Amino acid sequence: MQILLNKILENCRRITEKGKVATYIPALGKADPNDLGICVADMNGDLFSAGDYEKKFTIQSISKTVTLMLAIMDNGIEYVFDKIGMEPTGDAFNSIIKLEIVSPSKPLNPMINAGAIAVTSMIKGKNSLEKFHRLLNFFRKISGNENLDINEEAYLSEKATGDRNRSMAYFMRDVGIFTGDVEDILDVYFRQCSIEVNCIDIAKIGLFLANDGRIPETGEIITSEKVSRIVKTFMVTCGMYNASGQFAINVGIPAKSGVGGGIMTSIPHKMGIGVYGPALDDKGNSIGGCEMLKKLSEELDFSIF
Amino acid sequence: MQILLNKILENCRRITEKGKVATYIPALGKADPNDLGICVADMNGDLFSAGDYEKKFTIQSISKTVTLMLAIMDNGIEYVFDKIGMEPTGDAFNSIIKLEIVSPSKPLNPMINAGAIAVTSMIKGKNSLEKFHRLLNFFRKISGNENLDINEEAYLSEKATGDRNRSMAYFMRDVGIFTGDVEDILDVYFRQCSIEVNCIDIAKIGLFLANDGRIPETGEIITSEKVSRIVKTFMVTCGMYNASGQFAINVGIPAKSGVGGGIMTSIPHKMGIGVYGPALDDKGNSIGGCEMLKKLSEELDFSIF
Amino acid sequence: MQILLNKILENCRRITEKGKVATYIPALGKADPNDLGICVADMNGDLFSAGDYEKKFTIQSISKTVTLMLAIMDNGIEYVFDKIGMEPTGDAFNSIIKLEIVSPSKPLNPMINAGAIAVTSMIKGKNSLEKFHRLLNFFRKISGNENLDINEEAYLSEKATGDRNRSMAYFMRDVGIFTGDVEDILDVYFRQCSIEVNCIDIAKIGLFLANDGRIPETGEIITSEKVSRIVKTFMVTCGMYNASGQFAINVGIPAKSGVGGGIMTSIPHKMGIGVYGPALDDKGNSIGGCEMLKKLSEELDFSIF
Amino acid sequence: MQILLNKILENCRRITEKGKVATYIPALGKADPNDLGICVADMNGDLFSAGDYEKKFTIQSISKTVTLMLAIMDNGIEYVFDKIGMEPTGDAFNSIIKLEIVSPSKPLNPMINAGAIAVTSMIKGKNSLEKFHRLLNFFRKISGNENLDINEEAYLSEKATGDRNRSMAYFMRDVGIFTGDVEDILDVYFRQCSIEVNCIDIAKIGLFLANDGRIPETGEIITSEKVSRIVKTFMVTCGMYNASGQFAINVGIPAKSGVGGGIMTSIPHKMGIGVYGPALDDKGNSIGGCEMLKKLSEELDFSIF
Repeated sequence: MQILLNKILENCRRITEKGKVATYIPALGKADPNDLGICVADMNGDLFSAGDYEKKFTIQSISKTVTLMLAIMDNGIEYVFDKIGMEPTGDAFNSIIKLEIVSPSKPLNPMINAGAIAVTSMIKGKNSLEKFHRLLNFFRKISGNENLDINEEAYLSEKATGDRNRSMAYFMRDVGIFTGDVEDILDVYFRQCSIEVNCIDIAKIGLFLANDGRIPETGEIITSEKVSRIVKTFMVTCGMYNASGQFAINVGIPAKSGVGGGIMTSIPHKMGIGVYGPALDDKGNSIGGCEMLKKLSEELDFSIF
Repeated sequence: MQILLNKILENCRRITEKGKVATYIPALGKADPNDLGICVADMNGDLFSAGDYEKKFTIQSISKTVTLMLAIMDNGIEYVFDKIGMEPTGDAFNSIIKLEIVSPSKPLNPMINAGAIAVTSMIKGKNSLEKFHRLLNFFRKISGNENLDINEEAYLSEKATGDRNRSMAYFMRDVGIFTGDVEDILDVYFRQCSIEVNCIDIAKIGLFLANDGRIPETGEIITSEKVSRIVKTFMVTCGMYNASGQFAINVGIPAKSGVGGGIMTSIPHKMGIGVYGPALDDKGNSIGGCEMLKKLSEELDFSIF
Repeated sequence: MQILLNKILENCRRITEKGKVATYIPALGKADPNDLGICVADMNGDLFSAGDYEKKFTIQSISKTVTLMLAIMDNGIEYVFDKIGMEPTGDAFNSIIKLEIVSPSKPLNPMINAGAIAVTSMIKGKNSLEKFHRLLNFFRKISGNENLDINEEAYLSEKATGDRNRSMAYFMRDVGIFTGDVEDILDVYFRQCSIEVNCIDIAKIGLFLANDGRIPETGEIITSEKVSRIVKTFMVTCGMYNASGQFAINVGIPAKSGVGGGIMTSIPHKMGIGVYGPALDDKGNSIGGCEMLKKLSEELDFSIF
Repeated sequence: MQILLNKILENCRRITEKGKVATYIPALGKADPNDLGICVADMNGDLFSAGDYEKKFTIQSISKTVTLMLAIMDNGIEYVFDKIGMEPTGDAFNSIIKLEIVSPSKPLNPMINAGAIAVTSMIKGKNSLEKFHRLLNFFRKISGNENLDINEEAYLSEKATGDRNRSMAYFMRDVGIFTGDVEDILDVYFRQCSIEVNCIDIAKIGLFLANDGRIPETGEIITSEKVSRIVKTFMVTCGMYNASGQFAINVGIPAKSGVGGGIMTSIPHKMGIGVYGPALDDKGNSIGGCEMLKKLSEELDFSIF
């Protein structure tokens, strides 16, 4: 495995030149486009890594999977999916159109921004600070990394430039998808997106999902098999923005990417993989990360289909 | 297995009362809403059946999976997906909106009507008759049923009422997705939708897909593992109309439904299942069929996630 | 004229029963659905009135015409229409879809909410208070009513329930249609919508427009013929929500309605008419008001076409 | 007037270089982009012309106004507008989206292609040939030109390339906006678009509309004042594609343009104007024609607002 990872990383480093680092906030723009890292965490507790696997990056949209778990644990499956749909969408991640067209108004799924904000609004806590702390602790627990925390600069930038998300949030409050203070809800959302991780952290969260919601080392049951399956299903149908279908065909495993350059994958009952490469393709996915996962899947026949 | 099927069928018969038989063409409207049947075909060559598993019904949208295989075999993966997208969509199966909004114009995937018509246009043959015969022979081969043929009445009705499909087809020809005579292409499409099958037939096609494109009895390789995986991936991301996401979460296996009441499923390396129940839910899927598959998946832990 | 107005008012009173008072804020819901009033102000300085012409109501969307004038006077025609389109739209007054679909993003016209909010953002002033005071003074001047002021309860309700408008405003700030504090801009917008008027006030503003931007009594030139024509043109193409086309055909004169039940019309070089009837039809226009204007137009051959 | 026309034509000739001739069919592509002509027909029976006013061109979308008149005369106002809306739209002239989104499905107005095809379907006649002859005779009568006929080459090209129109027509038949053979209806539509006219012909049709539906020379009443007003209203709200609002503001008179380079205008109770200039702006309107009408309107204060 180690040799394979080294080889794949070497081969894929070149493709990063074809991608572009996200620049909508300065904290992202500073990333080195040539960075590329990977970490595989398997059920035996072994870790295999290569490249820039220890570089830190903001988790961004990958966080949507984790928040969804906690929201379901806090409210139950029925409550959550009464407010948010289960269907993939061909629209952009930040599209507001369907909120207006579909009746009754409902974000199509928890992986697009509108749905993810609605999910975040369901995290329990007496104020936004407590909500975020519960969420952060949950991230720490399932990644096994007590030191996870937010990148303050990224958080402030997200908050300063998050008008499209504000637009969605007010629209959703208008049609009754949630109540409460919009800025408070968005504050939790911007914070969750700004949590700093490295490849090891997301590989371990992927492994936790692969292990049906139990901490592999201890066997501790954090959430049910059902909940972890729901998350993995959304990762397949809508985890890779508008390249989810293509990724499912080319790689064939549950995966969630973030604009920070990370991709978290979870191969049921086998392993979790975290990759990082901030140079993105035109769909917003790590260009080097997708290539590594494709090659790895071909070598090791990962596809669940 | 036999006992389980009998029990599940018995329990699910009642729910058919909550569904409605499709009535847009008379041939569909005549179906008995209480019909319910299931057939499981496994890798050992065993068949288990219950209920109305020998009743014939028109294959309808289930045919989209088979045509896609032949179109890829005829033209190559690259050619097909240069014209048709790989992404799921939250729009209706007969929506024309995205053809206008998305640029360059491209049906989002081969499971919605627009995409399926474009796929059918790629089947090789010197005229529409030859195209359809090649297609029908392919259906016969992979189902192992030499007697498969179209329901003439259904075909003529589809042709007579297919104006929405005509609208899409002319739109696609206008934007260059295909060339050639529209009525000829639609003739093949209406014919493929009108092929009559029973639960056994579609269970066997599902098994063929589960077996990576090889005929289980003979081991004959009909198509590549890659092609059969592509089809199964589309079945997960967009096989059940706008309930694909929900079905993936509740049942967790590749499945394709048709408005005739059939659902074909394929559990990779395990089995194919064909169900029939013409009473449909509000998304257009067999209401009894979905329920049976959900219960069977819970009992036997089918989910691929 | 007086006899005609009395007769028409009497005949149209009955139709108010078919309409419904707006109820999205309590201040509107309290209106008496049977109220109906009209005032005609002509170029000779004569006023003719009938019914509940002295009842006060909030000006709501009628204010969009006046704010547009001041915004053009403050910034010039070119600046304003660089940010906001000139085209009518078949979408709802509060639709956000076109902001996402049209590229570059631009509200289609100043009469829909998105466009009107963008217009309000252009009113000059060092803070929202000064902006609103400049605007209020402009309303007072062209209506000749020094006592015009806002209905505090309506203003607070609008502010409390204005999430759809917030959603649009944040979207527009995101795509660069305006900068500045969104709540400050909306505060001016909610205030302008809450100005209390009666039929006489809006008849006089209509007359001012009919008189090409000059105060009829004094001849004082407030704005150019060009600006007043722009406003009257928008009143024809998009003044009556999604019944603008129908109204243009049936009545044929520039008119702008508000959800408070008022309709302001301006017959070029002839007269201004203000009507009030809080019972609305399904497009959001005063049902009794439209009927009165239709009958009056038929009697007096008002159509400009 | 003659001197003014000469001067304006001279000044506007240059701007034609900024436009482009339509090329979607060869018959249009052959036009000389520098051509520019104008004809004014007034109520006294006087004609003033300048430039290439005798050059023939296909009437294209201008025909929609005339067909609408005959359709209303054949079926009554109520019947026509039960099937077709009265509202302007911000969508493209060939957009199909609203047909799908709006419920019940209805083309927004008779000036967009979908609505115009529906209008054509209402022309009475026992077959498409008779329908077109009735229509052609109507064109001849109101233009006073017995020799009007179609450009055969343009007609055949329109028919050969009319797939977008076919797409709309099948969609409309699917949702019940009309019945009957789609190709027959489109044949009439393609023919009406291919009628060859010059500036004099459309100036005279414009004058006929300005004269409330009566032939000026003879006083013969062809249609009612109501019908002619309906047409003029649509010309203002949606006669100039997606520049209708802008044209209403800049020129302020009823006008209908065609992709062949013609613009027909009608100034109520004053005159009809026909202009021709095949170089189009990016909205599909004659760039030189618009400029001439703007300048003429400024000089003679045409605006109806």
